[in-house]
Amino acid sequence: MIVEANSVRFDSLSLDNGASLAPVDVAYETYGELNSKKTNAILILHAFSGDAHAAGISHETGKPGWWDNCIGPGKAFDTNKYFVICSNILGGCRGTTGPSSVNPATGCPYAMSFPVITVSDMVRLQKMLIDWFGIERLLSVSGGSMGGMQALEWAVAFPDRVVSAIPIACTTRHSAQQIAFNEVGRQAIMADPDWNEGNYYSHKPPARGLAVARMVGHITYMSDDSMREKFGRRLRGKENFGFDFDVDFEVESYLRYRGSEFVTRFDANSYLYITKAMDYFDLTNGQGTLASAFASSQARFLVISFSSDWLYPSYQSQEIVRALRTRNCDVAYVELQSNYGHDAFLVDVAEQTDLIRGFLASTYEKTQ
Amino acid sequence: MIVEANSVRFDSLSLDNGASLAPVDVAYETYGELNSKKTNAILILHAFSGDAHAAGISHETGKPGWWDNCIGPGKAFDTNKYFVICSNILGGCRGTTGPSSVNPATGCPYAMSFPVITVSDMVRLQKMLIDWFGIERLLSVSGGSMGGMQALEWAVAFPDRVVSAIPIACTTRHSAQQIAFNEVGRQAIMADPDWNEGNYYSHKPPARGLAVARMVGHITYMSDDSMREKFGRRLRGKENFGFDFDVDFEVESYLRYRGSEFVTRFDANSYLYITKAMDYFDLTNGQGTLASAFASSQARFLVISFSSDWLYPSYQSQEIVRALRTRNCDVAYVELQSNYGHDAFLVDVAEQTDLIRGFLASTYEKTQ
Repeated sequence: MIVEANSVRFDSLSLDNGASLAPVDVAYETYGELNSKKTNAILILHAFSGDAHAAGISHETGKPGWWDNCIGPGKAFDTNKYFVICSNILGGCRGTTGPSSVNPATGCPYAMSFPVITVSDMVRLQKMLIDWFGIERLLSVSGGSMGGMQALEWAVAFPDRVVSAIPIACTTRHSAQQIAFNEVGRQAIMADPDWNEGNYYSHKPPARGLAVARMVGHITYMSDDSMREKFGRRLRGKENFGFDFDVDFEVESYLRYRGSEFVTRFDANSYLYITKAMDYFDLTNGQGTLASAFASSQARFLVISFSSDWLYPSYQSQEIVRALRTRNCDVAYVELQSNYGHDAFLVDVAEQTDLIRGFLASTYEKTQ
Repeated sequence: MIVEANSVRFDSLSLDNGASLAPVDVAYETYGELNSKKTNAILILHAFSGDAHAAGISHETGKPGWWDNCIGPGKAFDTNKYFVICSNILGGCRGTTGPSSVNPATGCPYAMSFPVITVSDMVRLQKMLIDWFGIERLLSVSGGSMGGMQALEWAVAFPDRVVSAIPIACTTRHSAQQIAFNEVGRQAIMADPDWNEGNYYSHKPPARGLAVARMVGHITYMSDDSMREKFGRRLRGKENFGFDFDVDFEVESYLRYRGSEFVTRFDANSYLYITKAMDYFDLTNGQGTLASAFASSQARFLVISFSSDWLYPSYQSQEIVRALRTRNCDVAYVELQSNYGHDAFLVDVAEQTDLIRGFLASTYEKTQ
C-alpha cells in the first residue's frame, strides 16, 4: 500500500492563548475509502514524535507508517471497512504549521515567536480537517500516549462529533513526574548554545541537546524488564570494559544511536512546543471533577493501558474509567500484560488488535 | 557537634585498569571515639554525590552532614557507642584525589587523563585508610545507593576485615536501565561545549550540561507518588499558565534550582568517572553466580530496600538476600514501606534507624 502525503490550508485558527495563526497548513494521509454516508471515518491521533504517516509505505520515503501494524486491510483499524485519517499535529514539523514554518508576516521561520499551543488547539485544527472532509461524526478517534490525550479532548470538546474513542496508554493530565521528564528534555535543548534562543534554522540545529532529550525519552518508553531483555549488561563489540568514555554497553550504543537519529527527523523547537502542550493538558481545565469534564460526552470508550508502562501507568487510565463510570458512560477497560513499557501500544499489538477490532465492529453496527 | 575535615596522603594506589595513582589524598571525618581494642569502628560509605561530611555541623561551611539524621548520639549509628568514619570516595571532588586534582607529573588537573576507576578501587583506598587507623576489623560497613555497593564490595573483597554489612537501596550490578540513566547524564555533560574534553578548570565549567544531568538524577531519586505530594500540578508564583517557556509548574522550578545548585558543589568530570564506576560494578566480576561471589564472606548482613524505590528496586536487594541465603550467610532483609522513592534512605529514617540500631547492638555484643 503506497500512500501519498496530502495537505490542506485553512485561513486561520484561534488559539487558547488568545493569538491566532493564519494561515495554517495541515499535512494528512488517508487509508481506505470513505463510504457514501461518511459514517466509517476514523481519526488516528499520533503521539509526541509521530506524524501523518501512520500506515502504508510512504511514496516519498519508502518507509512504513508508525502504526502500520495496526492500520490496514484486516488489521485493528481495518481499511477494508473503515476510512482512516491521520494528520500531523499543530506545532509539529512534518507538514503541519509549527515553529519551523515560515511566518508570512516576516518571511522567516516562526521559531520562538510561534504561539504556545495546547492539545485543545491541536484538536480544533483536526476538527477543521474533519469538517473539510464533510464528515459529520467520526466513527472513532484513537491514539496512544499524547494521541490518547487528543482522543479524550475530542470526546469532551466535540461530543456530538464522536461516536467512540479509544484512548491508549495516556492520561487526562500530566503528573509532576511526567512534567519533570518533559522539562528535562526542554532544558537539554535550551542548554545547547546551538539552540540560540530558537533561531537556528539558517545555522546548525541544537543537535546535541535534542539528542540528550531524546535519550531520556527512550528510557521512559521502555521498561526495566524490556531493557534487561534487549540489552542486559552486554558489551558492544568488545570483550572487556574499555576503561574510557567510549561506548562500553550495548544500551549506551542504542541510546546514542536513537538520539542522533532523532535529530535528522525532528525539530527542536517543535519538541519544546509539543511537550509544553502535553504538560498544560488537563481535561478538567483545573475546574471540577474529572467526571464532570465528561458531562456532555456521548461516545463509547475503549480504554487500554499496559502493565509495564511506567510513563503513563495504568492508574491514570483507571482514573478515566472511574470518571466515565461515574457519568454512566459506556466504557470498556483492559490492562494488557506486556513487558514493553510505554512502547507496547506500538510494538505489542496482538491483543490490542483483537480488542480494537471487536470494539469498532460493534460500534459500527450500532451506527448503521 | 562541630566537625573538622581531615585528610591523609598515601604514596600510591594500584588500580583495576592497570594504572596507579601517586600520591592519593583521602578526605575523611570521624564521629565518636575509637575504643582501646578498636572494635567499635563503623565505616560509612557515601552515595554518588555525597562526601566525607556525613554528620555533625561542618566547621568550614556550617552545614549538617548528609546523613546527620542517622549518625550521632542516640541515632542509628550511635556515636556514644561507635566510632564512625566517612571518607570521600576516590574520583570525588571533595578532598579525595579525583579528576579535578592536580597531577603532580604535569602540575595541571588530571581532567580526562585521570584513570577510569572502579568501585573496587574506591574500596581498596578505603582499606588503606582503615589500615592507617590501625583498625583490624570494622564492626560494620554501611551506606545507601552506591554506598551500599561499596559495602557489598567490602564484604567480598576483605571478608576478614568486616564483621557486618548494611547495604541499603542498592544492587550487585547495574541494570540496563540504571546504566542508561547514567549514560544520559554523561552525554548531557559531554554535549556541553564548556566541557571542552574535560579541560575546563581554568575556564568556566560545563554548568548547563551538569545541571541537566542532575535534573534527570533528581527525577530518579523521587517516586511518582512523592512528586505528586510535593509538587502535583501546582503553578509557581502564578495563577495561570504563562504560555511561554519560563517556569510554569513548581516541579520545573525545583528541578532548575536543584540543577543549578549542584553545579556549585560538584565537578562534572567526577560525575563522569563515578557514574562509570557504578556502571562497571558487578560483584560477580561477570563470572559465576552471585552466591559464589559471597563464598568467602563472613559478615552478618542487614539488607534494606524501599517499596517505592524504582531506581534501585527491591528485587535487586532480594537478589542479594537469595545469594547470601544460598551460602547460608547470616542475613536479615526488610523492605520498608515509604513513598519517598530512592531518597527514602536519606529522608524517611525512623524505621531504618530502629533496624540499624538493633542490628548493630547485637553485632557488637557478639564481638565482645
